[in-house]
Amino acid sequence: MNKIITISREFGSGGRELGYKLSQKLGYAYYDKEIINAIVEKCGFNKEYVESVLENKVVHIYPLSFMNSFAMPYGPMPEISVLSAQNEILKEFAKKSDCVIVGRCSDFILQEYCPLNIFVYADMPTKIARCKAKATTCESLSDKEIAKQIAAIDKNRAKYYEYITGNKWGAKENYHLCFNTSKINIDDLVEVIAANIVKNKTE
Amino acid sequence: MNKIITISREFGSGGRELGYKLSQKLGYAYYDKEIINAIVEKCGFNKEYVESVLENKVVHIYPLSFMNSFAMPYGPMPEISVLSAQNEILKEFAKKSDCVIVGRCSDFILQEYCPLNIFVYADMPTKIARCKAKATTCESLSDKEIAKQIAAIDKNRAKYYEYITGNKWGAKENYHLCFNTSKINIDDLVEVIAANIVKNKTE
Repeated sequence: MNKIITISREFGSGGRELGYKLSQKLGYAYYDKEIINAIVEKCGFNKEYVESVLENKVVHIYPLSFMNSFAMPYGPMPEISVLSAQNEILKEFAKKSDCVIVGRCSDFILQEYCPLNIFVYADMPTKIARCKAKATTCESLSDKEIAKQIAAIDKNRAKYYEYITGNKWGAKENYHLCFNTSKINIDDLVEVIAANIVKNKTE
Repeated sequence: MNKIITISREFGSGGRELGYKLSQKLGYAYYDKEIINAIVEKCGFNKEYVESVLENKVVHIYPLSFMNSFAMPYGPMPEISVLSAQNEILKEFAKKSDCVIVGRCSDFILQEYCPLNIFVYADMPTKIARCKAKATTCESLSDKEIAKQIAAIDKNRAKYYEYITGNKWGAKENYHLCFNTSKINIDDLVEVIAANIVKNKTE
């Protein structure tokens, strides 16, 4: 079975950077924005629509009990088709090779592949500083406004995760490793996870 | 400043084993039961009494606002004297040398020493299996009974932590690393944490 690492992360915590660097270090495939493109290709919907569905729009339309039955073919409900395609694509990635997958409830969707599930988080000042250093769009915003945006994005992620999985987003019970990047350097984390993974793989 | 690692842990998760092995690997001092002995020596109370106070008895007697003022001398309230002595002893350990400290709200009490705070947890089947493998006292108990005992111990730990710190025990925000030992081998974790700590120390 391929080695799958899933990265869930608070916005601004550096989870994506950790995932990418880890994939490079290990020589694993890396899937992040690639997932959206693959869904677009599979479903034939336009990218904006797919993104809007995956940004939680769907959770306002269908109840959880319905959301969990993904086996249906692409039918008259396009939102469900997008989620169904996402499930299939994640599983295709998992079957293809060792990989790191960022977000998309992949820890839950790929549970049959026994992934190593990592949650990355940080305190708000760290996340604000990171957003300011990385993005150009928040240059004119105050720290308070950035914090509000971060909180809103994470609230959406939590809601989406809960609708798809029925579990609480960020609850440590759902992950194998939780890293607080407020104090620990991401490059160091990459080193130690990679060392552990490689060790297990070669034993 | 000395390197301080604090280990908080769910009962049966292997946190103590991780802490001990880590201290051995790093050549750090290790404090666990030693804390109780040092308090007994400092206060002059008997061991059973000190243990009973540190097993949450005190939280039923004094309100949180009072609990947080530890600066008072050993006075007419022996429970507070025990907690005050505990604070002093933890700080003495932190000043003395690099060390690993298990439990005792040391992540909170030693925050001025910038410790690396680790929380160790596991799913219930893992904790039950661990208790059965380690202890002789639960030989006659069913898994359900062991689970009940584990839950009761952790409930007590949570209550004690909350009274002392005002924070939620086990909430990942209070820790730098959270490790789920259900899937990950403790010896591997020791290796990777040690590698990271040693690396930071020599840089």
